Amino acid sequence: MASCGALKTMFLSSNVTQDGYNSACLLNPSSKNVTRQSTNRKFTKIVAVAKDNANNETTNIARINGSLASTLRYTGEKPNTPILDTINHPMHMKNLHVEDLQKLADELREEIVYTVSGTGGHLSSNLGVAELSVALHHVFNTPDDKIIWDVGHQSYPHKILTGRRSRMGTMRQTSGLAGFPKRDESEHDAFGAGHSSTSISAGLGMAVGRDLLGKDNHVIAVIGDGAMTAGQAYEAMNNAGYLESNLIIILNDNRQVSLPTATLDGPAPPVGALSQSLIRLQTSRKVRQLREVAKEVTKKLGKTTHEVAAKMDTYMKGMVGGQGASMFEELGLYYVGPVDGHNVEDLVYVLNKIKSMPDAGPVLVHIVTEKGKGYPPAEIAADKMHGVVKFNTQSGKQLKAKSKTLSYTQYFADSLVAEAERDDKIVAIHAAMGGGTGLNTFQKQFPKRCFDVGIAEQHAVTFAAGLATEGLKPFCAIYSSFLQRGYDQVVHDVDLQKLPVRFALDRAGLVGADGPTHCGAFDTTFMACLPNMVVMAPSDESELMNMVATAAAIDDRPSCFRFPRGNGIGSFIPSDNKGTPIEVGKGRVLKEGSRVALLGYGTIVQSCLEAHKLLQAHGISVTVADARFCKPLDGDLIKQLANNHEVLITLEEGSIGGFSSHVSHFLASNGLLDGNLKWRAMTLPDRYIEHGAQPNQIDEAGLSPKHIAATVLSLIGKSSDTFHIFNL
Amino acid sequence: MASCGALKTMFLSSNVTQDGYNSACLLNPSSKNVTRQSTNRKFTKIVAVAKDNANNETTNIARINGSLASTLRYTGEKPNTPILDTINHPMHMKNLHVEDLQKLADELREEIVYTVSGTGGHLSSNLGVAELSVALHHVFNTPDDKIIWDVGHQSYPHKILTGRRSRMGTMRQTSGLAGFPKRDESEHDAFGAGHSSTSISAGLGMAVGRDLLGKDNHVIAVIGDGAMTAGQAYEAMNNAGYLESNLIIILNDNRQVSLPTATLDGPAPPVGALSQSLIRLQTSRKVRQLREVAKEVTKKLGKTTHEVAAKMDTYMKGMVGGQGASMFEELGLYYVGPVDGHNVEDLVYVLNKIKSMPDAGPVLVHIVTEKGKGYPPAEIAADKMHGVVKFNTQSGKQLKAKSKTLSYTQYFADSLVAEAERDDKIVAIHAAMGGGTGLNTFQKQFPKRCFDVGIAEQHAVTFAAGLATEGLKPFCAIYSSFLQRGYDQVVHDVDLQKLPVRFALDRAGLVGADGPTHCGAFDTTFMACLPNMVVMAPSDESELMNMVATAAAIDDRPSCFRFPRGNGIGSFIPSDNKGTPIEVGKGRVLKEGSRVALLGYGTIVQSCLEAHKLLQAHGISVTVADARFCKPLDGDLIKQLANNHEVLITLEEGSIGGFSSHVSHFLASNGLLDGNLKWRAMTLPDRYIEHGAQPNQIDEAGLSPKHIAATVLSLIGKSSDTFHIFNL
Repeated sequence: MASCGALKTMFLSSNVTQDGYNSACLLNPSSKNVTRQSTNRKFTKIVAVAKDNANNETTNIARINGSLASTLRYTGEKPNTPILDTINHPMHMKNLHVEDLQKLADELREEIVYTVSGTGGHLSSNLGVAELSVALHHVFNTPDDKIIWDVGHQSYPHKILTGRRSRMGTMRQTSGLAGFPKRDESEHDAFGAGHSSTSISAGLGMAVGRDLLGKDNHVIAVIGDGAMTAGQAYEAMNNAGYLESNLIIILNDNRQVSLPTATLDGPAPPVGALSQSLIRLQTSRKVRQLREVAKEVTKKLGKTTHEVAAKMDTYMKGMVGGQGASMFEELGLYYVGPVDGHNVEDLVYVLNKIKSMPDAGPVLVHIVTEKGKGYPPAEIAADKMHGVVKFNTQSGKQLKAKSKTLSYTQYFADSLVAEAERDDKIVAIHAAMGGGTGLNTFQKQFPKRCFDVGIAEQHAVTFAAGLATEGLKPFCAIYSSFLQRGYDQVVHDVDLQKLPVRFALDRAGLVGADGPTHCGAFDTTFMACLPNMVVMAPSDESELMNMVATAAAIDDRPSCFRFPRGNGIGSFIPSDNKGTPIEVGKGRVLKEGSRVALLGYGTIVQSCLEAHKLLQAHGISVTVADARFCKPLDGDLIKQLANNHEVLITLEEGSIGGFSSHVSHFLASNGLLDGNLKWRAMTLPDRYIEHGAQPNQIDEAGLSPKHIAATVLSLIGKSSDTFHIFNL
Repeated sequence: MASCGALKTMFLSSNVTQDGYNSACLLNPSSKNVTRQSTNRKFTKIVAVAKDNANNETTNIARINGSLASTLRYTGEKPNTPILDTINHPMHMKNLHVEDLQKLADELREEIVYTVSGTGGHLSSNLGVAELSVALHHVFNTPDDKIIWDVGHQSYPHKILTGRRSRMGTMRQTSGLAGFPKRDESEHDAFGAGHSSTSISAGLGMAVGRDLLGKDNHVIAVIGDGAMTAGQAYEAMNNAGYLESNLIIILNDNRQVSLPTATLDGPAPPVGALSQSLIRLQTSRKVRQLREVAKEVTKKLGKTTHEVAAKMDTYMKGMVGGQGASMFEELGLYYVGPVDGHNVEDLVYVLNKIKSMPDAGPVLVHIVTEKGKGYPPAEIAADKMHGVVKFNTQSGKQLKAKSKTLSYTQYFADSLVAEAERDDKIVAIHAAMGGGTGLNTFQKQFPKRCFDVGIAEQHAVTFAAGLATEGLKPFCAIYSSFLQRGYDQVVHDVDLQKLPVRFALDRAGLVGADGPTHCGAFDTTFMACLPNMVVMAPSDESELMNMVATAAAIDDRPSCFRFPRGNGIGSFIPSDNKGTPIEVGKGRVLKEGSRVALLGYGTIVQSCLEAHKLLQAHGISVTVADARFCKPLDGDLIKQLANNHEVLITLEEGSIGGFSSHVSHFLASNGLLDGNLKWRAMTLPDRYIEHGAQPNQIDEAGLSPKHIAATVLSLIGKSSDTFHIFNL
């Protein structure tokens, strides 16, 4: 019996004692303190054999995933799933043999390819966790045990196994299943997600809550290596290591630190030093060799008697020679791995072992998986088919709708490239979203001027601030809802210091299938309250390009511009993609009218123009203005609209507190509300709008052209029930 | 010549080769790749001696700091500072001998105790970095080289050495020096701070910017072990390790992971597993022994010839036997240390060595210091005299102004304890601010129900969300401006899931001497836009206690309440500290009037009552109402005020987009602005207000009772220049 001190790792080889027996440390089930006990004497022999074979260098990372059943058949027809057909609840999986569990994983994989080919959605991340999902639900008992899927786009197998199989065809559609775990949707969804790196924090809260209430369920957080780059994961691990509550963290390492959410281009190689550490860990020759050899020996000796001696130690002693685990140890976690994430038998074995340990404290199980595993078109695709529309299952070819225009994202990227060609101080920063933000386009042309910092919005913002102090002109491209993750840095590092960082806020407003986690509702509210920030929104793609040029030109203070998911409307695009700077704080009138003024901010201006047409048909004279700026406001324009119209409506696809609020303060301060002007604000409603088609969401928000027109008619007293006129 | 592979640490003992010579790795100045060269053969002997002495276990952490000059004299009189008197710019330090540099550090320490005793401010963190500040400014050349002080409250020595000595008596006062680095204040302040953990991100941005511009200056980020617990530091290190730009990170390890910002109580012991790693590293016997022995040998051999051989290696090979450094290595940093942070000679030596290495990549220098070092009253104080008011230098006794009332913070803590006594599901979370938030009081009574998660607001929020899913009732106490750091988690994990987490937002509104970094200007704006959040603000301490009770009772959705820095007004406090829940969404009328209505949100209601008195003297009948809730608004109250008054003014100590904006939307939606009501909003102005006395700040914001009264007179046309009436 040896005491191994404070370092919390289960390791082995360095503790082979002189008597030839292994004094490796395992968790001591009788104590929560970090004491261990010697164990598994027979395993010592395996280690010895392994050591003798240490010169054999043929093992490589590919072999770790060699256990998957041979390629499945994807015919496009409903797959034959005899085992899956018997599973309506995780309880039905409890008595399956391990061979059937592996088959179940294969069936799940076929089922997912089949259903996602019809709905679109996230594909490859789900294929990667088929075995893990099966193993987790076999070993643990949801909903008593809590499984938290970080980010959550990999929760399809989990949804299928927890009673939602029949609704998979409604995935991400209006009134259908959500694309992420959702507490409202199932008691098996312990914690909602959409943004990354929250699972360990939430899991630790659940674990500590369990302890306080005297319960004894298990809590499992499943987090990817990409999500591990975010600061919150580190904060949570540090706290977990301190609190020592029982918590199982599964690090699903598929070497995808940068998300291949490529709408425009393939993924970039993993960034961040952590990924290098993980790769070292995966490929550590010693670890591999020991593992493989140990497994072979185990097989020869027969499983029954030697399972405990070999299998568990194989994985739980992964530290033999490995170096990448030590960061997790430093943070106070027990490291187990690397485990083949496509081998159900091994997963079940390791999970059962951990489950059976009382007072294990926080354990990190490092599993290695392949994104898109088992579906050849996904395996070979540059973006691993991370997010897809409907596709042909045999070819993997996606049935993308043709459009005459490009996405706003692409217009942004093209015009930023055009600016950067003319000004070598322009640099670009994104947080693991080279595809989603369009900056892969920029990276191709200016590889040394583009920075993918990992899923690390906080760092991205302050890093950009640092660049700005040196006279560079940073464009920080972050989705509206993700910038929430870097808000303090926007306030404290950028705006307070008046540093000219430019924020390109993609996915502003309603985003369709991804739903409320990704909805860019709040950015205008939380950005426009900042004293030094220039806050803009283009009404079309031509204006977007002009605002890129405007932001490039604003070099004495920070600025931001928001633009939506989706395609442009077909407005003028200069042949060289170079926008023209707009005068800061100047809006424009698009339609001259007399009675009602619609003052839109952002692409909702297009809906105002539609409403203008509808109202024209009713003989109502409507002015349509494009505010362009929320800050600084165009005071002259607002005064003119307020003074010359009976009704002024401000419109935005954003929450209360944003553009309309700024206009109302201006109106009040200037006495423009003291008379009989009717001012109204049309904003996103004060509730979250569920996933679904964007037009449905706009309708639900009451921001369609018909809603605008009906509101106008109602305000000018044209009808007591104007909404019927437009069939609303 | 040995190649040491990819792991980026400078270490030694394990590389002693069979020929007896050291093949330790040093950075190869000729290559940016991670190749090293053998070096320092003579040092091998030292290592050998050290190894022989490895059984000597007498060395301990205290010895590392044993080199400080004996206790300085603090008489209360202006200290005698002959060397410091010659320094008006860092340039003047360049030719000082190391002995004089150590004396200069001592003089700095005396100077700081002397000046801070007269101004108040941050004390002990500045005493801790006297030697570091001297060494940095001796070795590096600001402003060309960039020194970034994380958090920044330890920048006083830096300010004194960079031409601001004569203004130290104005520290934190209106129009005086700021208490933090400030780019506007000096070209030597490379980056402003106030919030923690931003320095590595900013430094990396500066380093990359320098590289892009082809410059060759140095960038140094100085960050404490507390700040290291924040996720942003990890994100930045991970990115720094990947980019490999030359960047020097100085980890100032004073074992103060939890800030002892004790306004109420002493500090808590360090939390988080990282702190354990650092402690292991500091106290590692092998490291200590090797270092001490190596130093002794060096002294015997004489410095001149053996400096390179011994001194540098002593520190740069700290990894001998040390284990805590590996996390930094995993993140791609070269680890150097631990270095005695109170030994100028050693600091200068190590910094010069690193400075002279081209292409060193990111280097982390781990220095160990004592907070309050050299000033006995600070060394022995429970809170290390972290933040102080004026004090007697001989006794260290602070000259605290007596007050009949307690701070809002204390009333919050007391009432939360009262709730927790009655409901064992109430738990409390703070982010390294047990003193500042008052939760040390809670911790004393309920040690198992209080969680200090480190400087980790992101984790704090989601951790609280996890606790809420289990049926616990978490109160998350975070300063208003610090909650910006956890905003995405508030949106995505708490509000979207409608989890009943209660946010206690201390330091709301203007905060006095700490200035704009700590100003709680934006919380109502960024919280009230969230659909499910109940948003409240008490008008006095009695109401604060009632709102704690209200929040405890709201168990179906999240809630928050904001309260200011400073003391209560003397309102009724129940003997058992137990507040009474308020009906959600119900405000109250405090003064009935007829012509003008003042609708205040938060403690500004007290100013409204003052204004009421002023206006009464002018014969103006004023209603004063306490809104209590920004969300949900009290619609009945607002309608009543709008319908029965000529003027309605909404007031808050917060930015645009908050309470007033919500009222304006309500007024508009209900047609209450269509008639002749004059509505005005009095909010914080749209600019940052510098540090200074709170009353001065209120005046500058135009939110004093006189400003309110003058605004009223102006609106009702009583005078064309009403501001003169009140001497404004």
